[in-house]
Amino acid sequence: MQTKKIELLETYLSLYIDHATVLDNTGKEDSPYVVLDVRNAPAHIKKDQIKGAKAIPARDLTNHLDELDKSKTYVVYDWTAGTTLGKTALLILLSNDFKAYELGCALEGWKGMNLPIETIE
Amino acid sequence: MQTKKIELLETYLSLYIDHATVLDNTGKEDSPYVVLDVRNAPAHIKKDQIKGAKAIPARDLTNHLDELDKSKTYVVYDWTAGTTLGKTALLILLSNDFKAYELGCALEGWKGMNLPIETIE
Amino acid sequence: MQTKKIELLETYLSLYIDHATVLDNTGKEDSPYVVLDVRNAPAHIKKDQIKGAKAIPARDLTNHLDELDKSKTYVVYDWTAGTTLGKTALLILLSNDFKAYELGCALEGWKGMNLPIETIE
Repeated sequence: MQTKKIELLETYLSLYIDHATVLDNTGKEDSPYVVLDVRNAPAHIKKDQIKGAKAIPARDLTNHLDELDKSKTYVVYDWTAGTTLGKTALLILLSNDFKAYELGCALEGWKGMNLPIETIE
Repeated sequence: MQTKKIELLETYLSLYIDHATVLDNTGKEDSPYVVLDVRNAPAHIKKDQIKGAKAIPARDLTNHLDELDKSKTYVVYDWTAGTTLGKTALLILLSNDFKAYELGCALEGWKGMNLPIETIE
Repeated sequence: MQTKKIELLETYLSLYIDHATVLDNTGKEDSPYVVLDVRNAPAHIKKDQIKGAKAIPARDLTNHLDELDKSKTYVVYDWTAGTTLGKTALLILLSNDFKAYELGCALEGWKGMNLPIETIE
């Protein structure tokens, strides 16, 4: 059972990227990361997002794959950690040969740490 | 690692059902879905629940399996996404050959989207 | 798929310990459990913790393994359920042959149930 636990933890954790790695690259011209806000809610509910994020709702992601760049690494996030929307988006991206991670802290954690956000018009 | 990630995501996501599918069948005479509130808290703490849900606390579920109907699909939920209580209930149901899913948004998400709830007396 | 689901649930749930087991042993001289607060935040952000917990931030855990006791069972927790920090700590502990679990309810659930906490000076 110990081996199974370790295997599950390793695979599970390999799905995630931490905020520090993303933050270190924010605003850099040649950043390998593109942050994707995959929340399905309309803009007036979302109100704000991670600074510089590109909004593609998880439910529309399959139709927007041709706008994405295979040389980039996509970092998806939902409202909170533990929801399934980020994993749905991640599965679509990985299955289509994109490099992608889920943001470990989600939007809630990002805002809780006072990291840069921006208002959505 | 990519294959392992995709496999984990596929299996993990297959545990869940989304609110829209459940909502579309709410109140229908012949709905295949029965929503189970598996929170262990007493009624005065729970206060309200998803409209039409049947309350069977996860810790009592094993003793109530004979009240369930194998032709139905059970949708379990806990307070929030990411807790283990829904998965505990799900494991009991699946291990006993019931069709079952966890509600992806949990009660928190359901209420956050203003979907129908009811007060618990 | 049913078998895969059950296997995943079994392994996933085996990572967790519930609050009741931990609580029953709190303050006992010969308790097999040691609760580890693995939050990375500084003390003034954390403010309080589970009563009797030992604080070792997840990012420092690898450097503190020689302070831990292989005869004990470690119970790690983060702010909320569903984050990855507890799992990161858990992976370090299990990979180094410690007995360890994540606290299912996390700090949020522990406080929500009014279980004993203590202020951090």
